[in-house]
Amino acid sequence: RAERPKPIKGVPFVPYVLIGGGTASYSAMEAIREAQPDAQILIISEEEFVPYQRPPLSKELWFGEASNKDLIFKDWQGNERGLFYLPKEAFNIMTPDQIKLLGTNPTKVQYLANAKVVKLNPEDQTVTLANGSRIQYARVLIATGGTPKTLPAFETLSPEAKSRVMTYRGIEDFKRLEQIAHGKKTIAVLGGGFLGSELAVALAGESGTRIVQAFPEDGNMGLVFPRYLTKWTTALLGRLGIDVKTQADLSAVVEKDDYLELQFNNGVTVEADYVVQAVGLMPNQKFAEASGLEIDAARNGIVVNAELEARTNVFAAGDVTSFHDVTLGRRRVEHYDHAVMSGRLAGFNMTGAKKPYTHQSMFWSDLGPKVGYEATGIVDAKLPTMGVWAKGPHDNLFDDIGFEEFGKGVVFYLSPEKKVLGVLTWNVFGKMDLARKIIREGKVHTDVDALAKLFGINSA
Amino acid sequence: RAERPKPIKGVPFVPYVLIGGGTASYSAMEAIREAQPDAQILIISEEEFVPYQRPPLSKELWFGEASNKDLIFKDWQGNERGLFYLPKEAFNIMTPDQIKLLGTNPTKVQYLANAKVVKLNPEDQTVTLANGSRIQYARVLIATGGTPKTLPAFETLSPEAKSRVMTYRGIEDFKRLEQIAHGKKTIAVLGGGFLGSELAVALAGESGTRIVQAFPEDGNMGLVFPRYLTKWTTALLGRLGIDVKTQADLSAVVEKDDYLELQFNNGVTVEADYVVQAVGLMPNQKFAEASGLEIDAARNGIVVNAELEARTNVFAAGDVTSFHDVTLGRRRVEHYDHAVMSGRLAGFNMTGAKKPYTHQSMFWSDLGPKVGYEATGIVDAKLPTMGVWAKGPHDNLFDDIGFEEFGKGVVFYLSPEKKVLGVLTWNVFGKMDLARKIIREGKVHTDVDALAKLFGINSA
Ligand SMILES: Cc1cc2nc3c(=O)[nH]c(=O)nc-3n(C[C@H](O)[C@H](O)[C@H](O)COP(=O)(O)OP(=O)(O)OC[C@H]3O[C@@H](n4cnc5c(N)ncnc54)[C@H](O)[C@@H]3O)c2cc1C
Ligand SMILES: Cc1cc2nc3c(=O)[nH]c(=O)nc-3n(C[C@H](O)[C@H](O)[C@H](O)COP(=O)(O)OP(=O)(O)OC[C@H]3O[C@@H](n4cnc5c(N)ncnc54)[C@H](O)[C@@H]3O)c2cc1C
Ligand SMILES: NC(=O)c1ccc[n+]([C@@H]2O[C@H](COP(=O)([O-])OP(=O)(O)OC[C@H]3O[C@@H](n4cnc5c(N)ncnc54)[C@H](O)[C@@H]3O)[C@@H](O)[C@H]2O)c1
Ligand SMILES: NC(=O)c1ccc[n+]([C@@H]2O[C@H](COP(=O)([O-])OP(=O)(O)OC[C@H]3O[C@@H](n4cnc5c(N)ncnc54)[C@H](O)[C@@H]3O)[C@@H](O)[C@H]2O)c1
Repeated sequence: RAERPKPIKGVPFVPYVLIGGGTASYSAMEAIREAQPDAQILIISEEEFVPYQRPPLSKELWFGEASNKDLIFKDWQGNERGLFYLPKEAFNIMTPDQIKLLGTNPTKVQYLANAKVVKLNPEDQTVTLANGSRIQYARVLIATGGTPKTLPAFETLSPEAKSRVMTYRGIEDFKRLEQIAHGKKTIAVLGGGFLGSELAVALAGESGTRIVQAFPEDGNMGLVFPRYLTKWTTALLGRLGIDVKTQADLSAVVEKDDYLELQFNNGVTVEADYVVQAVGLMPNQKFAEASGLEIDAARNGIVVNAELEARTNVFAAGDVTSFHDVTLGRRRVEHYDHAVMSGRLAGFNMTGAKKPYTHQSMFWSDLGPKVGYEATGIVDAKLPTMGVWAKGPHDNLFDDIGFEEFGKGVVFYLSPEKKVLGVLTWNVFGKMDLARKIIREGKVHTDVDALAKLFGINSA
Repeated sequence: RAERPKPIKGVPFVPYVLIGGGTASYSAMEAIREAQPDAQILIISEEEFVPYQRPPLSKELWFGEASNKDLIFKDWQGNERGLFYLPKEAFNIMTPDQIKLLGTNPTKVQYLANAKVVKLNPEDQTVTLANGSRIQYARVLIATGGTPKTLPAFETLSPEAKSRVMTYRGIEDFKRLEQIAHGKKTIAVLGGGFLGSELAVALAGESGTRIVQAFPEDGNMGLVFPRYLTKWTTALLGRLGIDVKTQADLSAVVEKDDYLELQFNNGVTVEADYVVQAVGLMPNQKFAEASGLEIDAARNGIVVNAELEARTNVFAAGDVTSFHDVTLGRRRVEHYDHAVMSGRLAGFNMTGAKKPYTHQSMFWSDLGPKVGYEATGIVDAKLPTMGVWAKGPHDNLFDDIGFEEFGKGVVFYLSPEKKVLGVLTWNVFGKMDLARKIIREGKVHTDVDALAKLFGINSA
């Protein structure tokens, strides 16, 4: 049980305060309720929505029926699912001015929507909202995720021109982009990482809409995939009708009458009606930094130990967190499974479990319904890799880019001593526990074919 | 009160276990006793001695009476003092095989001498000794300090030659070097940092003994002082009779009949009967690393948060600790005041205080009885500095090296935006609180003369 701190007059007290309304926060809430079914919990979120999952926003929601008004979608197995974890009614939703009602022993989790935390004081155990009001906690979680980065070239545009430029993170963004996508115009997606590549593929399905994707790397997912797979992926996106511009660093944006001209350092020019920036994420760490918590100078994020604890009674989880991975060293991870599992552990530790984060998180991504991959550990294109490939099913559409050649496979990311630091499986699913075991063991591997066989891949 | 973990059969339990018998550990012991006078504490030390202070080992002990058998010395004010914090009798001293007697509610602090901790298990809250026996704790402190580094050129020497080479950290080393120093031979001190410079000055007082000091930098304290002060200090050491070889990186050691020939990369050769290596410190962190605790990749040391906590119930203090300095960012500090104050805070936090380490530690050093300096914050020769100087007392001995010119002064170490990150006062004492205030305020300073006036220095 969390001890109650010294009360402060006029400041309401809630034992468990979770900052952020995303996946990590929601998962912590679940864990706390599992450990202490009657625990009083308050979630504070800048969003107006109750917690939801983001991955379908760049995948399933684009491949289902014509309209997604209710944010219901079919997953790849054909099951109908919703974006929200729980209906609104499962929460006791309040606004910042209803703060006096806090901590009155509710049976539901209290949810403060449209509320921004601007300060945290570990000394008197309070958080301060943008409207100045304070809330006292026994234990607090910071799970504020991140905000999409933006490129400086867009900053000086007129308001009209700016209205043609967006970033992509939440439900509002999905609704806006869906509308734009139906307009049979040219959309430029900037960025060749997870989001840019998934969105380009998703948008390519919209008939009459032209998709251009541009980014500085040599090919899609160039910071993650080995080079040959990057090249192949870029060819695939070309096949899907996407005009991919590689080695293209944005140098200027010129406002035209009713479109934008994007100029790149390599001489390429793109005329776009709309622009989606998918150029990385900046952790929402400012208020934590201003509150004296440590920020990781090398990789951004709030510094926590292996128990996801920053200071006594202060925890962090999800995208915003730089944590000590006991197997692979200090890291920050921006993926869904990590948000779930670090959120859960933080929740349990907030109830006193005191356990280290030993879960090796995985992630998945899809490039349309026909190509999917999963990965765990450190998958960084800067590391040496060893890949083993097998033929996949024949598909006319992709014949001439060697769809069969890279039908399915496994890529091992190696340390200089040839320990396996990361594993990526390509059109092979459900092998992440095996991959985790290999990474955890930390053995030196020289026979990669033998390893690949464990994943069901027999090289020719 | 620390909760008792789940008992393990045959494993004795002590609520507070302090690993290391140095200053940080001793200070933690004091703090725990202040907070909980009847607390049961066990100190485990690799040394055979009870806790003592190291600073006099390279200073006062060399300038006092002829013999220091009892490790009694006069401080610069003339007061007689001892090296040990407390007499042996203040502890309940035991050996590793007396471990069954642990935790039997002693009134004295229990002290396990000549015992090395080789493992720490945060899960079942045990430490393991080199002899295999385990002890269970409620809270544990790691205050294992460091081991002097050594140069590879000495590693391949014969045993006879090796017996002419030493490092310098503890009482045994003092006794050995004192004997050597009386032998009217040539002693080479390698290293131009704190220890090398202090020891060279200390040894220079031994009549008939020749002292050579060699190091890679341009002058003494070259990694700390601004360049002009480094040059001046090297001139001072020359005046004291020390043969200082700058820009001298050891490349080879040749064994001669009854001496060693040291060959440096700049062509310089030194014939020495004895060699003292003072080439930096390596934190004693191996067992912690093997136990899954995080090691700071950039600066070494066990990673702890601002409360000096590594994991729940696991704290670290002193030289071995990489901590979050809320004012100046992550650091590791190898000085006495830091060992005392971080040890004290860790002790208090082990009893439940949960306070951040906001003390900005200071250090001092002496180059003989006539020159002393104090400093706080980040004093790194790589930073831009601003120094203000005033004439000191006239001294014939040092006339021609400008003793008066650098009689007393203050050096400010600045950030790129001209915030004061560190302050060094030269022959000016007792101004560290003022310096701390300036660093804490974090203001941009352009009028350095005005700042210097606060320190009692009026530039000409
Ligand atoms: C379109 C899209 C698709 C994705 N697809 C995948 C995928 O296929 N696979 C995968 O592994 N990962 C995927 N991800 C990544 C995954 O969604 C994230 O890693 C995950 O959402 C991180 O969860 P989080 O709780 O840490 O942060 P978030 O989900 O970003 O939640 C943070 C919350 O904190 C709130 N907040 C921020 N600052 C404050 C403040 N000061 N006060 C109050 N509230 C605040 C925010 O409004 C938000 O509600 C995808 C991400 C996106 C955007
Ligand atoms: C000669 C000398 C002069 C100095 N002069 C000054 C000065 O003038 N001013 C200043 O500010 N600083 C000075 N210092 C530095 C200062 O003494 C140190 O910063 C301070 O001693 C650090 O304290 P500590 O407790 O962290 O480590 P230590 O004092 O090194 O204590 C560590 C203890 O841990 C024990 N230990 C290590 N590993 C294990 C293990 N696995 N199991 C059990 N026990 C273990 C060691 O045997 C030792 O007893 C000087 C240092 C030296 C050597
Ligand atoms: N399947 C998944 O796991 C998945 C899917 C979608 C989104 N996400 C997450 O959403 C967040 C945002 O995704 P993202 O793709 O923006 O981030 P990312 O880190 O995956 O990719 C960043 C990309 O930004 C691009 N970039 C950087 N500087 C640029 C510049 N000057 N001009 C043009 N492009 C530039 C690069 O192409 C780089 O690949 C990330 O946290 C990501 O992990 C994850
Ligand atoms: N007054 C004080 O605060 C004080 C006094 C004595 C000792 N100490 C502490 O004792 C420890 C040991 O002191 P130290 O002087 O060895 O460490 P230091 O870090 O102060 O100095 C290291 C020195 O090693 C030398 N060096 C590095 N590589 C070398 C090489 N290849 N060949 C020759 N020299 C090389 C350099 O000259 C450098 O200045 C440190 O923790 C120090 O802080 C502190």
